[in-house]
This record gives sequence, structure tokens and C-alpha cells, in this order.
Amino acid sequence: MTDEYFMQMAYREAQKAFEEGEVPVGAIVVMNDKIIARGYNQVEKLNDPTAHAEIIALTSAFNYIGAKYLPEATLYVTVEPCLMCAGALYWAKVGRIVWGADDEKNGHKRITGVNFPFHPKTVITTGTMKQECSELMKSFFKARR
Amino acid sequence: MTDEYFMQMAYREAQKAFEEGEVPVGAIVVMNDKIIARGYNQVEKLNDPTAHAEIIALTSAFNYIGAKYLPEATLYVTVEPCLMCAGALYWAKVGRIVWGADDEKNGHKRITGVNFPFHPKTVITTGTMKQECSELMKSFFKARR
Repeated sequence: MTDEYFMQMAYREAQKAFEEGEVPVGAIVVMNDKIIARGYNQVEKLNDPTAHAEIIALTSAFNYIGAKYLPEATLYVTVEPCLMCAGALYWAKVGRIVWGADDEKNGHKRITGVNFPFHPKTVITTGTMKQECSELMKSFFKARR
Repeated sequence: MTDEYFMQMAYREAQKAFEEGEVPVGAIVVMNDKIIARGYNQVEKLNDPTAHAEIIALTSAFNYIGAKYLPEATLYVTVEPCLMCAGALYWAKVGRIVWGADDEKNGHKRITGVNFPFHPKTVITTGTMKQECSELMKSFFKARR
């Protein structure tokens, strides 16, 4: 399976968020080429600003594997993780993170700058389906204006 | 009520964590001089590395007030928030944060450096009951060695 295939699955999660009036971000967790957890942004529904796609997918993954570290897993997320999610991914020791679109406004890089906030062993890939992930965000905010 | 009074309440939460074999960090959320939420570290119990005292207290506070922002609230936490919790406090737009001991190893400042990760309107106070909060952490890790 390719990164594009799995990012497409994360994108489907983001579309669910979009349909429910949430900022359209989706995430999945993959282990041994199998999706073990999914999540999409539910901040409005849960009235909880920490209910980001990544946090929901991670919590689901911990439950699934019965462990609190995910060194063998890859997390795919449609948009660059925010500071909170970067911190959660650090604690989870996720083996690899793949994100689609960068987020100039709320992405973690805005605060962390050159400092790498993830676990030293975490491998980062960015830009997978960048255009589609970015367009989904733009059309959401455009519709809200 | 003083900061020392409320930090004592957060410290009690940290003691609960200590007694349960968790890294001893405790937090409370205060609004109008009233404690509206409490939390202590439950990473081991819940098998979830995101189950930090601050996250648990925040989620409880959102539920209590039925809103996702806490500009009128103060969060007291015994130890400097990590990167994840700093991000969560940013999203929550918490009015004020008071922490006891700094955390050179896992505190958010290690990554964010001079960049302020909280909401621009958030007021920060540090060092309240610093010694006690720090000693509790030290005695926990000492007992584990």
C-alpha cells in the first residue's frame, strides 16, 4: 500500500468532518499495512477544543493495541499537526507521521520553529495529497465567511 | 482565596497520582473563586500517554460550563505544562495559568524556547509552591530507581 492510498483514507475522515460542519481534518493510524484507528475533528460536536482528529485516532489506537506507545505505527493526517497534537505524537512515540497540507496559521511549526517536537526516532513525510487536503480546508472556511 | 490555597488543591490531586503509581502531577480549574474541575495524571491507568492532569481537568471543565473556551478561568497545575498541554491550553483560551515547579526535561519551554505557546491573552504565573511540587516529583522518580 502507498502513502497516497492511506492519505486517501485520512481524507475520507476529513470529509466526514466537513459534512458535520467541523474544520475538515482527518487522521488514521496504520500498522503492518492495516488501518487500526481513525479519527476526524469533533471540536464542535464534543464542545471540546482538544478533540482533534489526531488525538481521537491516537486514543483509539492505544485502546486497540493495548499499549501506550506506537513505534511501529504510521499516523496519516490531512493537515500539519498543531502544537497540542505534535506533543501528543511525541508522547506516543509514533514511528512515522505523514501529513498533507502545511498549516501556516495553526501548525506546530509556527511556534516550535526549527526545534523538532516529535520523538527523535519519528520519521516525518509531508506533502502527500497536499493540494486536495488544502483545498478541502479552503472550501470549508470560504463557505463560512 | 490565594494562589497558594488553590495550588494546595492541585497538589492534593498530584498526591492522588503519586499514590496510584503515576507521575505526580495534579491540576484544577477555578472560576469565580470556585473549583470547577480537577484532574491528575492517569497515563498508566488509562494506558494513554495523553491522559495528563491538565487535559483531564480541561475536558471536565468544558463539560461543566458547556463551552469550549475558558477565558474567565485559571488553571493551576503543579508542574510546568508539556508541549501537548501547552497546546491544549492555547486552544482552550484559558485566562490564566499558574504552575508550581518548572520541568527542564518535559516542560514545553524546552521546545518552544522564547516563543509564547499560549493564547496572547493568557496570563502566566509560575513558582507557586515550587519546592513542594518539585519534591513530590523527585521522590516519585527516586522511589522508581
